[in-house]
Amino acid sequence: MSELSQKILAGNLRALAQAATCIENRQPEAEDLLRELFQHTGRALILGITGPPGAGKSTLVDRLAHLIRAEGHTAGVIAVDPTSPFSGGAILGDRIRMLSHYEDAGVFIRSMATRGRLGGLAPATMDLALLLDAAGRDVIFVETVGVGQGEVEIARLADVTVVVLVPGMGDDVQTLKAGIMEIASVFVINKSDLPGADKLDDELKAMLSLAHKSNGWTPPIVRTVASEGRGIGEVMSAVRSYRQNGLAGNRKIESWGLRLREMLREKMLERIPGAEIEAAAEAVAARQRDPYSIVHDWIKRV
Amino acid sequence: MSELSQKILAGNLRALAQAATCIENRQPEAEDLLRELFQHTGRALILGITGPPGAGKSTLVDRLAHLIRAEGHTAGVIAVDPTSPFSGGAILGDRIRMLSHYEDAGVFIRSMATRGRLGGLAPATMDLALLLDAAGRDVIFVETVGVGQGEVEIARLADVTVVVLVPGMGDDVQTLKAGIMEIASVFVINKSDLPGADKLDDELKAMLSLAHKSNGWTPPIVRTVASEGRGIGEVMSAVRSYRQNGLAGNRKIESWGLRLREMLREKMLERIPGAEIEAAAEAVAARQRDPYSIVHDWIKRV
Repeated sequence: MSELSQKILAGNLRALAQAATCIENRQPEAEDLLRELFQHTGRALILGITGPPGAGKSTLVDRLAHLIRAEGHTAGVIAVDPTSPFSGGAILGDRIRMLSHYEDAGVFIRSMATRGRLGGLAPATMDLALLLDAAGRDVIFVETVGVGQGEVEIARLADVTVVVLVPGMGDDVQTLKAGIMEIASVFVINKSDLPGADKLDDELKAMLSLAHKSNGWTPPIVRTVASEGRGIGEVMSAVRSYRQNGLAGNRKIESWGLRLREMLREKMLERIPGAEIEAAAEAVAARQRDPYSIVHDWIKRV
Repeated sequence: MSELSQKILAGNLRALAQAATCIENRQPEAEDLLRELFQHTGRALILGITGPPGAGKSTLVDRLAHLIRAEGHTAGVIAVDPTSPFSGGAILGDRIRMLSHYEDAGVFIRSMATRGRLGGLAPATMDLALLLDAAGRDVIFVETVGVGQGEVEIARLADVTVVVLVPGMGDDVQTLKAGIMEIASVFVINKSDLPGADKLDDELKAMLSLAHKSNGWTPPIVRTVASEGRGIGEVMSAVRSYRQNGLAGNRKIESWGLRLREMLREKMLERIPGAEIEAAAEAVAARQRDPYSIVHDWIKRV
């Protein structure tokens, strides 16, 4: 086992940060490292937090991390961010609130930036979660900004997923809910002191009563005011109840199926040189060749 | 050339609908069809419309489609939707407004549902756009709900992308804007009669003044009240100005590079039987094998 792996297993922060960067940049060494560490993973609770912008996810994660620490456990936070070419990297935004953990080595925080890649952040995010798991973090929060497909996919890969909603989201709340409904282990109505909390609660209950529950679990609805620390303990209890019911285990198998597919896709893509893809793109844009034949040829060759 | 292709090229609506379903379901015939039709594509303007939920994208698309029709052109609308297991398919939501085109054969409307697939909707969406292009549609709107990575990717594949924002989106507007800033050809401030339109306009201008413009284009900011039909012509002028500057062409090459990568990934994945992936997922979840070695073996075999 490499020295870096040993240090990570021992909880060395500098080694952890170094490995995290390696994973985020998809360096080839990352895979060897993760292969070594894999046997030491599977203990942590990977907790996905998702929901629409403005729902207060970062504040909720901040409060949950404080709770975890107060119980004597350690935490990891992975914040999945869109990247701006203007800021040149991950966005701070309301993540700044997480600075309340800045001096606590028991909370390891890392932002993952999308960098505009087609294909997604899911592999790097989940590799980073495995790393934190191997490093002995008890609870790993994976927070996604937005409610798009990429975010839903990342949340789906977690052991337990908390979907955070807020009252008064307007007409599109139906649309938002639909995409994330199926992945929710627990619903949180944050900012529940705002008008419309009862209405949202009723709407969620109505949707849940119509839902087909393949695993016998009805997601509980927990009300919070995260900015004031209200309802935080109840969220954690609901999460643990999901896990204690053994549901996280089945979900893990399903999630590994998705991840293996994603890893395979990522690996395959490395086989065709970038310059060749660019040249093909020009030929296709000029209608000199059709894309289906090009891809067919590539597959035959690889 | 197949009979179906001929009918599509002739603008037959039934053939178009049949082919669209074929593409959406990723049936193998779809690829043969698209290979035949590919030479007849490249004429349409593919117009991506994206932005946060509640920004009024559907209403804007509806109005733009009316404008296109009034000019004597035909339109296609592809709405990319998250799928709900509750509704069992694509969501209606505010798409219901598009019913104003229900009896107009000059506007072909299709919703694409995510179906919870890892890997994305981009290939099917862009194949559907190619189909509509071959069928002679002049302008093809690709509208994405949400602001996540998947949505940004789809918007990026369009010739021209309109990013729709609204005043008063709250704290997260910075985050929203960051992810979609780089793909905008044109910004629309919709619901611009609401308070905060000037502030949003100023913020956008400030961000744009800091931006690195690799193609010399500064995205114009157009104010609309789509529900009242205000500013619609200005949006279309801005879009056409982007295209007339020849910028859509460069973008097409870049977009084909992304699409070829995505097509390759999708094809590769078809090579490993689903049952084998599921069995591997169980072994990984039980820590009997590590996922990196499994994927390595698969690649060696394919």
